[in-house]
Amino acid sequence: MMRNKAKIIICETFRLPPGFRAAGVAAGLKKSGRKDLALFISDLPAAIAGVFTTNQVQAAPVKLDRRRLAGGVGRAIVVNSGNANACNGPRGLRDADRMTALTAELLGLTKLQVFVCSTGRIGLPLPMDVIEPGIRQAVAALAPRGGRDAATAIMTTDTRSKHATVTFPVNGRTVTLAGCAKGSGMIEPKMGTMLAFLLTDANVDRPSLQACLAAAADDSFNRVSVDGDRSTNDTVLMLANGAAGHALLRPGHADWPVFDAAVRQLTLNLALKMARDGEGATKLVTVRVCGARNDAEADLAARAVANSLLVKTSWVGDYPNWGRIMDALGYSPAKVVEERVDIGYDGLPAVRGGVRAGTELARLKRIQRQKAFTLAINLNLGPGAAVVYTCDCTEEYVRINYAE
Amino acid sequence: MMRNKAKIIICETFRLPPGFRAAGVAAGLKKSGRKDLALFISDLPAAIAGVFTTNQVQAAPVKLDRRRLAGGVGRAIVVNSGNANACNGPRGLRDADRMTALTAELLGLTKLQVFVCSTGRIGLPLPMDVIEPGIRQAVAALAPRGGRDAATAIMTTDTRSKHATVTFPVNGRTVTLAGCAKGSGMIEPKMGTMLAFLLTDANVDRPSLQACLAAAADDSFNRVSVDGDRSTNDTVLMLANGAAGHALLRPGHADWPVFDAAVRQLTLNLALKMARDGEGATKLVTVRVCGARNDAEADLAARAVANSLLVKTSWVGDYPNWGRIMDALGYSPAKVVEERVDIGYDGLPAVRGGVRAGTELARLKRIQRQKAFTLAINLNLGPGAAVVYTCDCTEEYVRINYAE
Repeated sequence: MMRNKAKIIICETFRLPPGFRAAGVAAGLKKSGRKDLALFISDLPAAIAGVFTTNQVQAAPVKLDRRRLAGGVGRAIVVNSGNANACNGPRGLRDADRMTALTAELLGLTKLQVFVCSTGRIGLPLPMDVIEPGIRQAVAALAPRGGRDAATAIMTTDTRSKHATVTFPVNGRTVTLAGCAKGSGMIEPKMGTMLAFLLTDANVDRPSLQACLAAAADDSFNRVSVDGDRSTNDTVLMLANGAAGHALLRPGHADWPVFDAAVRQLTLNLALKMARDGEGATKLVTVRVCGARNDAEADLAARAVANSLLVKTSWVGDYPNWGRIMDALGYSPAKVVEERVDIGYDGLPAVRGGVRAGTELARLKRIQRQKAFTLAINLNLGPGAAVVYTCDCTEEYVRINYAE
Repeated sequence: MMRNKAKIIICETFRLPPGFRAAGVAAGLKKSGRKDLALFISDLPAAIAGVFTTNQVQAAPVKLDRRRLAGGVGRAIVVNSGNANACNGPRGLRDADRMTALTAELLGLTKLQVFVCSTGRIGLPLPMDVIEPGIRQAVAALAPRGGRDAATAIMTTDTRSKHATVTFPVNGRTVTLAGCAKGSGMIEPKMGTMLAFLLTDANVDRPSLQACLAAAADDSFNRVSVDGDRSTNDTVLMLANGAAGHALLRPGHADWPVFDAAVRQLTLNLALKMARDGEGATKLVTVRVCGARNDAEADLAARAVANSLLVKTSWVGDYPNWGRIMDALGYSPAKVVEERVDIGYDGLPAVRGGVRAGTELARLKRIQRQKAFTLAINLNLGPGAAVVYTCDCTEEYVRINYAE
């Protein structure tokens, strides 16, 4: 893996791969007048892969895309922010379908090749009289350099646009993989209101693309929790249009590990940006649990800590309130034996065998004052391990979420 | 039940039953100088019942009391606030034991008749040099009218003392049942840092007392959630000293239903005071779920809503953001079919069949502006029902919880 990583170059811009165009416009869904409608198109038919929310209540665009994914070929993705188009009944489905049909018509495609995503408030019908002119405007604005506008148009409470671009060699040619994501609140994806779009000119076998995306999402987006609320709209879509012109990539191809590593690097990069930009957040906290009886219990223990309101609020200040971490571990569904628990803050022991380790308080405080730190929790019961990326819960989080 | 309730009189004072004395003093555990050590004593040997936290990490006093409860007889309860005596290893157990031994010595009891509770920060050793003089001071201050001071001394972030007194007839005599409780944060008891003490002069069979208390706690304290964090210290203890002199109460006695109803009224009264006084809370919200496949799933659905950070923060304002309630129901482990969900706010329909019911927004807002309201959620899938009492999550909650 390390050998492959060496060939992969990641940069913090959002440069569309060859054969892709994008646009982001202000259709008028957001009261603020900011951009709220994005469009991505591949000029060639592209293999498409997707992962979606596991919430039992699913937004209309999620229901639609799930069905279309079976076709395996995608050309365009149309996205609106400012309205989730969730809990709108049959009307919601008709509106989502109309978004794809109009996009297809304007681009000379069939609607089955067009995917749709929405993000914003739940339970309000989409204002199609605003959306439709918005789509026309976006089609007119499509450009190879339109990625940045599109990445901005998908934002809701995000304070910054989240994107990155990875390049890597396949069969000696340089391939590009660019991705953008949004997500700040209602984030505990298993697949939050998170959306991510990955675009590449690699030539990839469709089932392999789906498997690769699903595994990478599991180890990145699905490891993030801002508030423990799993959205109705979470969607990651990936288009691979093959414009790079190399031999079909699939497991077995000498360069598959490089492609797989590139997808993993990009998804983790975007996932960490999401955790760092959690609504109102000031700190990125990595919670690593090891020594659980198994990986599933490690995950439950890590999520109990990452989602504890008392733990998350304690991180706002600098007092390392590890008693609350012990408490959360104790009520998690994972097996925990108080006397065995060790907790470290960026390598400094705070708890050993369930009690104070004796590290000077001032040193622990210095760590918790940092913009990012890692909690390492060892349950000392078995081989299970898991990691969750999360953030503190500030007064600003509360303010953002009771505003109408 | 209604027939029996008629005989029960509840009042908002804390009047100790005959044969009980109490005290509350400022030992010096709280930096603020407020009262922090409480003592309750029954002048007669009393039947004792208790329920405790189900957290796997348990405070030293919880471990000690659990063992002593088997003896079935209690005389005194000594309680400190300002320090949880949790995660302190063997030293914590020695300190808890010492608290009971000193109390016993000063009162001429054996330590096995003395129970102990602690509440406050986790992971700091108890300052016994402060506790011991505090216990001496409390013993000296014991008085039949000392209940109010004791109820104050058990508070931590509580903004007000929580107590009530119920009177009811048994065999024609008037029996008194008085209770006090504390709890404001780290509250999702199954058995939060919540403590409650119930004192009665009724003459009650020990096993019946335990069964009655456990069932009443299940339908009251265990229905409250402030922040979904279950404490290491939750304890409810009940002493029945028999001073009323009537025939032994147990199921089968004509007045057992009155006693049972009185215990339930008092525990629910205290539980609602806890939810209303949740840290930083401005609103008491009752979440009722019906129509789940079974009661257990109704409970899971109600807790998903009551513990959703996005739902709790939305209650701070007046916008009835029922989309977040739909979202929380959808990710709860309970079976939910989007198209069947109905949600009402104090009887006004907000959602019917998974979509907007069309009730005027201004009317729903008026309800959410109230200091207390009820959400009635019908999943329309089966006979399961549950209720959870909770509160909004304000900026003040966050401020309280990152202060050192």
